Amino acid sequence: MPKPKRPKYIIGVDLGGTNIVVGACAEDGSKDFAMRSEPTRSDQGADAVVDRMVRMIETAVKETMAETGAKREDFLGVGVGAPGPLDRERGVILTTPNLGWQNFPLRDVIAERVGLAVKLDNDANCATLGEWWMGAAKGGRNVVGVTIGTGIGGGLILEGRLYHGSSDIAGEIGHTTIDVTGRRCKCGNYGCLEAYASGPSIAERAREQLEGDHESTMYTMVDGELERLTAAIVYDAAKKGDETALEVVRETARFLGAGIANLLNVFNPDVVVIAGGVTQAGATLFDPLKREVRKRAFKAAVDACRIVPGSLPGNAGVVGAVASFKQQALGAV
Amino acid sequence: MPKPKRPKYIIGVDLGGTNIVVGACAEDGSKDFAMRSEPTRSDQGADAVVDRMVRMIETAVKETMAETGAKREDFLGVGVGAPGPLDRERGVILTTPNLGWQNFPLRDVIAERVGLAVKLDNDANCATLGEWWMGAAKGGRNVVGVTIGTGIGGGLILEGRLYHGSSDIAGEIGHTTIDVTGRRCKCGNYGCLEAYASGPSIAERAREQLEGDHESTMYTMVDGELERLTAAIVYDAAKKGDETALEVVRETARFLGAGIANLLNVFNPDVVVIAGGVTQAGATLFDPLKREVRKRAFKAAVDACRIVPGSLPGNAGVVGAVASFKQQALGAV
Repeated sequence: MPKPKRPKYIIGVDLGGTNIVVGACAEDGSKDFAMRSEPTRSDQGADAVVDRMVRMIETAVKETMAETGAKREDFLGVGVGAPGPLDRERGVILTTPNLGWQNFPLRDVIAERVGLAVKLDNDANCATLGEWWMGAAKGGRNVVGVTIGTGIGGGLILEGRLYHGSSDIAGEIGHTTIDVTGRRCKCGNYGCLEAYASGPSIAERAREQLEGDHESTMYTMVDGELERLTAAIVYDAAKKGDETALEVVRETARFLGAGIANLLNVFNPDVVVIAGGVTQAGATLFDPLKREVRKRAFKAAVDACRIVPGSLPGNAGVVGAVASFKQQALGAV
Repeated sequence: MPKPKRPKYIIGVDLGGTNIVVGACAEDGSKDFAMRSEPTRSDQGADAVVDRMVRMIETAVKETMAETGAKREDFLGVGVGAPGPLDRERGVILTTPNLGWQNFPLRDVIAERVGLAVKLDNDANCATLGEWWMGAAKGGRNVVGVTIGTGIGGGLILEGRLYHGSSDIAGEIGHTTIDVTGRRCKCGNYGCLEAYASGPSIAERAREQLEGDHESTMYTMVDGELERLTAAIVYDAAKKGDETALEVVRETARFLGAGIANLLNVFNPDVVVIAGGVTQAGATLFDPLKREVRKRAFKAAVDACRIVPGSLPGNAGVVGAVASFKQQALGAV
């Protein structure tokens, strides 16, 4: 009788501008373990961030071993999702406005420290891959993932495969122009979707409203200290019915709707999955967003597509980093 | 000794809003025959347009037979590129603002009349496929084709295959918003690229300039009858150094540059091939266009991509319709 095969595990790391999330997944994605989040604190420099990632990976390995009885050799490797642009082939982060890193060989640095195989992929690609493998985009053939946090990232699954483009830049949906003469974006361009609908941009637009409007709940929520205003506070105030906050959310929906309508007309996907903090706004955001898309995109593209919030909030990046490791190291998810 | 295989031929039809172009290609694309163009005259109704297409196909078959000694059975079929959105599977044009057709079963109508197998594809997909098979995008792995004429169409070749999307709408680049509060487009949306940079939109922007400027060469070229102004006249005047025309072309370059930068950030292609009347403007258009793209897109995306004019002017649609027939009927080009 053949000995039953021992289950294998893969570690996933989601390195974001604000938080690092690390956890382990069973090789088939069926279960995750030891999921933990810590602030990135990129202001402390790359070394401190790497130390934190390594410590979190070791903790995830140990906790998973304790929980499952697995041995260290049952861990196949580590998938890391990181902000781009990056070079997957060489495992290098080329430049990243949200961390301030340039030409940083993250893959090899981590691999040397933890003694496991490491694969690197774009964080937004990973989030999309996660939602497609185990979440809200399951079963889709052409999937656009939009992740809205500190920045706006995107991932593309086309004809059932993650699409990277000719130099791993594909899917930078946040940096598509929706207003040629519009707001300046951190990337240097004008009128990027990210300059209107990322978390910090939402907070900034709300701040602009509050300068002439001290009646809003938001103003009270931050004790008049507008620099403390965040997108999360805007969503909270909108849920409480604050009219200024509701208008900021509706305006966000119109900008996102225009950006997503562009994606429908160009990619004609069957699923658009939206993840990140912005999904906290719920129907207040999604209803006008879908209306805007219906208004702007071709009917045949609208009819073919469902627009859904991600169903793995907080975990999609980790699950997708695991899926990306599988795809890169083992050939398929 | 085996009898040498007789060469086979495929007819290509490029049905545009302004002209119908028909010709034949050797099966391997190495040579084309009997290439002819006639005005579409969609104002005469669908029946008259179909009659014209059938007559042009029959002429192409006869002339190719006369030139090559081929027999009728040496013609494998007809590829038709038509404006969309359309349903390839059913061979039906769903709706087309530039022809005014609705749910028109073009494939079967033509097949019945000419007695040959017919395959239908989007005209802009065909133009891109043509440039990739035999023209300026040869050798590209991820190719975006932008065809600028009466409308702005797009075609996508991703990982070496024509990408159609989930309901054959993919590549509608002309209908991506570059200004959320911008000009009304024929599609019903606001701020579409097509509303700024299609042939008629270029003429319209020039007309707006000329209302307050009767000094321009363009004004003289149309004897002050501004409704006679076309994009071709704008390019002509720009070549003669007319400052108003030059500014209209430069502005066109900025709009197109923003739209193409979006495509670079999202698709990260290795080739963008631009075809259609607008290429007549030459370096006056392409130089500022490339500058605008460099300004707006990520460096890694710009570095990976060449932006080139099509090298099969007038024929790309026909050659691509032949390639599409091959891909759909025979499995590969």
